[in-house]
Amino acid sequence: MTKPKVAVVGYGTIGQRLADGVARQQDMELIGIADVAPTLALRALKEKGMPYDLYCALPQNIPLLEEVDIPVTGTLDELLEKVDIVLDATSAGIGQKNKELYKKHDLKAIFQGGEKNEVADVFFHGYANYEKGLGKQFLKLTSCNTTGLIRAVDCLDRLVGLSKVAITIIRRVADPGDYHRGLTNALEVAKAPSHQALDLMTIMPQVDATGILVHTPVTHGHIITIVATPKKKITKEEVLAQFRKHPRIRVVRLEDGFLGNASLFKYARDLGNPRGDMYEIAVWEETIVSSGNDLMFAINIPQEAVVIPETMDAIRASLKLQKDRLEAVHLTNQYLGMQ
Amino acid sequence: MTKPKVAVVGYGTIGQRLADGVARQQDMELIGIADVAPTLALRALKEKGMPYDLYCALPQNIPLLEEVDIPVTGTLDELLEKVDIVLDATSAGIGQKNKELYKKHDLKAIFQGGEKNEVADVFFHGYANYEKGLGKQFLKLTSCNTTGLIRAVDCLDRLVGLSKVAITIIRRVADPGDYHRGLTNALEVAKAPSHQALDLMTIMPQVDATGILVHTPVTHGHIITIVATPKKKITKEEVLAQFRKHPRIRVVRLEDGFLGNASLFKYARDLGNPRGDMYEIAVWEETIVSSGNDLMFAINIPQEAVVIPETMDAIRASLKLQKDRLEAVHLTNQYLGMQ
Amino acid sequence: MTKPKVAVVGYGTIGQRLADGVARQQDMELIGIADVAPTLALRALKEKGMPYDLYCALPQNIPLLEEVDIPVTGTLDELLEKVDIVLDATSAGIGQKNKELYKKHDLKAIFQGGEKNEVADVFFHGYANYEKGLGKQFLKLTSCNTTGLIRAVDCLDRLVGLSKVAITIIRRVADPGDYHRGLTNALEVAKAPSHQALDLMTIMPQVDATGILVHTPVTHGHIITIVATPKKKITKEEVLAQFRKHPRIRVVRLEDGFLGNASLFKYARDLGNPRGDMYEIAVWEETIVSSGNDLMFAINIPQEAVVIPETMDAIRASLKLQKDRLEAVHLTNQYLGMQ
Amino acid sequence: MTKPKVAVVGYGTIGQRLADGVARQQDMELIGIADVAPTLALRALKEKGMPYDLYCALPQNIPLLEEVDIPVTGTLDELLEKVDIVLDATSAGIGQKNKELYKKHDLKAIFQGGEKNEVADVFFHGYANYEKGLGKQFLKLTSCNTTGLIRAVDCLDRLVGLSKVAITIIRRVADPGDYHRGLTNALEVAKAPSHQALDLMTIMPQVDATGILVHTPVTHGHIITIVATPKKKITKEEVLAQFRKHPRIRVVRLEDGFLGNASLFKYARDLGNPRGDMYEIAVWEETIVSSGNDLMFAINIPQEAVVIPETMDAIRASLKLQKDRLEAVHLTNQYLGMQ
Repeated sequence: MTKPKVAVVGYGTIGQRLADGVARQQDMELIGIADVAPTLALRALKEKGMPYDLYCALPQNIPLLEEVDIPVTGTLDELLEKVDIVLDATSAGIGQKNKELYKKHDLKAIFQGGEKNEVADVFFHGYANYEKGLGKQFLKLTSCNTTGLIRAVDCLDRLVGLSKVAITIIRRVADPGDYHRGLTNALEVAKAPSHQALDLMTIMPQVDATGILVHTPVTHGHIITIVATPKKKITKEEVLAQFRKHPRIRVVRLEDGFLGNASLFKYARDLGNPRGDMYEIAVWEETIVSSGNDLMFAINIPQEAVVIPETMDAIRASLKLQKDRLEAVHLTNQYLGMQ
Repeated sequence: MTKPKVAVVGYGTIGQRLADGVARQQDMELIGIADVAPTLALRALKEKGMPYDLYCALPQNIPLLEEVDIPVTGTLDELLEKVDIVLDATSAGIGQKNKELYKKHDLKAIFQGGEKNEVADVFFHGYANYEKGLGKQFLKLTSCNTTGLIRAVDCLDRLVGLSKVAITIIRRVADPGDYHRGLTNALEVAKAPSHQALDLMTIMPQVDATGILVHTPVTHGHIITIVATPKKKITKEEVLAQFRKHPRIRVVRLEDGFLGNASLFKYARDLGNPRGDMYEIAVWEETIVSSGNDLMFAINIPQEAVVIPETMDAIRASLKLQKDRLEAVHLTNQYLGMQ
Repeated sequence: MTKPKVAVVGYGTIGQRLADGVARQQDMELIGIADVAPTLALRALKEKGMPYDLYCALPQNIPLLEEVDIPVTGTLDELLEKVDIVLDATSAGIGQKNKELYKKHDLKAIFQGGEKNEVADVFFHGYANYEKGLGKQFLKLTSCNTTGLIRAVDCLDRLVGLSKVAITIIRRVADPGDYHRGLTNALEVAKAPSHQALDLMTIMPQVDATGILVHTPVTHGHIITIVATPKKKITKEEVLAQFRKHPRIRVVRLEDGFLGNASLFKYARDLGNPRGDMYEIAVWEETIVSSGNDLMFAINIPQEAVVIPETMDAIRASLKLQKDRLEAVHLTNQYLGMQ
Repeated sequence: MTKPKVAVVGYGTIGQRLADGVARQQDMELIGIADVAPTLALRALKEKGMPYDLYCALPQNIPLLEEVDIPVTGTLDELLEKVDIVLDATSAGIGQKNKELYKKHDLKAIFQGGEKNEVADVFFHGYANYEKGLGKQFLKLTSCNTTGLIRAVDCLDRLVGLSKVAITIIRRVADPGDYHRGLTNALEVAKAPSHQALDLMTIMPQVDATGILVHTPVTHGHIITIVATPKKKITKEEVLAQFRKHPRIRVVRLEDGFLGNASLFKYARDLGNPRGDMYEIAVWEETIVSSGNDLMFAINIPQEAVVIPETMDAIRASLKLQKDRLEAVHLTNQYLGMQ
């Protein structure tokens, strides 16, 4: 059987990591990436020797790229001719426009969290609703916070059943090197309930969710505290054991030196992970406490990389590479080294 | 009746504001302040023309102060001879040592949150347990976060009864101008449950409390999200109405431009408040949401000034100036302009 | 002689402080301020009891203001009828549009640094080129960095003559409470030479200037290092003595606890200055060093308030209240308490 | 000829990178690393499969390491028995103590910038004074800022001769993930002249140097502005050409998206560099300006990795692997991929 052919459209923070993620899936083939201008990401790609073929989504910009010696293999249209599925990681709103193009080429496509839900046939999370994505033409991933949050909530819900969650999102406001967004010496409060709580309910309608989001001036990972109401009593030890078994959740300890989001980033760099990325969310063992029958704990969301595994799952679902949820996620995990 | 005479020992961030607070209480007399070295706070006091008399707690340091033209009225012992009660705002741990001195002078004293609970006869909050402080020799105030938190929790508990609260403290890590503490591009997670939750239960044993604290690299106010379980159903409108009636709680709206902790600081500066301080905690109207029967909302704690009103209440309780809780807090509020 | 009547148009960070500054000039009369919407600044003005009359620059917005109980005295046109001179502190670019209105009312006007130089007849600095502003209808102030920089450069140039300066501006990126601009964990380099160096040469053509500006994620004051080439040898002591004599320059010491821009902000708050503002720039004594015959030193620019004194000077020049430079600046200094 | 055997003592931010650097030198052999406790760095090493052998510098701590499954090959003494030279990257002050041990084992050693100069026979920089290090037993590297600064200053000095430099160091205050140091919303000024200027003169006595250092709350690289006085006139183009030829200097442009220190960090991550590190300093092309005959420009110092190449040079000098400066640095550059 030939490997499914994948294109990544939009080579920014997420697109770069999607391309790397696909390249690691041994049962898929990355045909190329597409972007529109000589960004730093493309300059780095060139300095690395163009491991991926570049297609230009704006043909009139090809001279701009060639001027700085970034080789262009063809146009976006040419790329789309060659593939089975597209991972669209363009800026919010562009995906909706690109969808017409994907339709024209009769392609499947996976959109990211910045697009509106209407762009897709199904709002998707690899662990929580894999089956809903099976065979669908257009899928939309949950955003980074929601993706990580659902991993933890789904993990407990499958163990014990959760009736409701109340979350506090302590959101990092920009990625490292992002000069377009920023916040200086300020916490910024958002209107509640946060979209992440609403999105969680779309994916997991069996759980009532609400939440408050506060932006903070840091770059290395969101932290979410979760107050979860289980349907039956559960101990801290059972929770911990369940989290430890989850391939996309890493249990860490303050005592070991994992003091916050920046420790996790440092650790991923020291591991030698490309870009210092981590695919796993982390749970701090020492934050797991009880509030009556409720559980409370804190997780870390590595915002740049967290959606990569679930996007790989989405390819598997859309193309029906695996019909079984666990078979699919385990294959993704294996290729991404998360086990 | 002569006004009770008050001394403030320790003229740092809190001590400066305590002195200003006492000076505004028309039924008290600030006799003087004490400190040990020519800090910026004392240099500013001198540049303002010494509105308060300075006593030196380390006699051997008097020459250091005089060298920079900061006039010294006497020693700490001399100050203590003249007063009825001391507000101790020294660094954590020093209050415990000073206590012997206060005993020697047969004085009453109010300690701040940095001291251990054992320093005092009662752990005090003006609104929540005023009666416990009546006539006691040694009182200890709750810390800034706990003081503000209890205002909100006590306010709802008196309305409807609360069985439990689960809090997330998004803590500012340093005050403006503090070069001793700091955090740079990092969120730091603390071991749960946070001491503020435990302290709340000491003051309000009828409420079960737990919480997680995360330090953030900002200076203008802590933000706390509270998930509160009321004993009977209560609407957002009732909650809002109750908060609006509370003289030490300010209901604000994102829509009006109060976007976070820094907006509140800016607003207090623009009000012309001395030092840009605000005594009130704030509740963001648009953060009040329901989670099943639970309520969730976010408050702002102006960490530099929030404990001043409750410390004034503590003087009233210790000296039995007012026996009635509401009579006492209302007098404090009136003199501090919070009504 | 009747006092000249002044209007402040635009009641943001600068406009608020201009209004306060004019109100302190005993030989001027502040007739009112103008703005367009119920900003936090206007809400604070109302909470303070409307010490200044408000005129609305967009008549259609009067209902918006009245809806939140902010009283409106009249329209901008009505305000302009009553005054001799306008201080325009609107957002960059609006001043140019307002100029037509000021012309229509045959008014003098002072614009701030955000406008283009062409808006005015003269680009003005109270200490450096007061005489050029005498009697002019339209003056434009230098920006906050340039205003503070020129104070220091003019001070030395008048003492010893400077042939050139090379400056490094370590720029605070936002004001406290500013949620519109921000930078998170990043230094941002600007194209050289910085406009402040070019602007300095416009005001002081006798000095060659260049410079590099780097944005930093802080809010409490710019810091500028200056490498100055004097025309004859000068000692550190002579430099210090000259700075100490300047009413708008404050010499501070690291040793005394003035560790950086945040210490100065804290000190101004502790002084009880309204809004915690400081009009003076600061020079750190321990940063003054020699580089061959060149001098090098660091200054602090309190960005929110630094242009207020020079704007008061501009009123004096434009209205020819004083013909003599030193007479004018000394009167401004006296009323603002800087001596 | 057998390859020289190298040990790295202290496996923190610098030690980790030194070990990686030695491992890439094809003419050296990394025998092992030493540290004292189960830090995050050692936990990461273990998770990577122990590419380097670990020796424990505190034998009593071996159980602590084994408890968390970090295999220990032996004691520090055992490591020292096996090697020819040690790279000491322990905390400041420990190197001085370790020196006795190195003497006992009759080893050569290279210390880092945190130690006092007296620890070594020569204060060393690969490009500027390679010859001074030839055959010496104990060398001390310049600190990160000084190492990068000297690269740029030496580069120009060899081209045209420099009589003096005046530098402004805009210093990042902590590394990513460092929770021990920090600064929040503050710039902190240091006493001038900065030690980096003094250190430069120790290495390059032919150049007069002074400078001011300001700490800023960021983590991704120091920025230094340099005002350099050349002995003869030189154009911007000649400067640029000289910088472009230097294997350890990278000329970048704002126009290309290199907006500041954080862009360079992002770019290094996107390049796939281990830990997102960059060995090169960067010069921003658009910051090179003239101030009379002086040159002014801004450079970026990647504080975590910048000293690695010069430390490799130091091994070459101390062991006399190459007698010629350029031969040595070019070999280092080749193995580290900088050409």
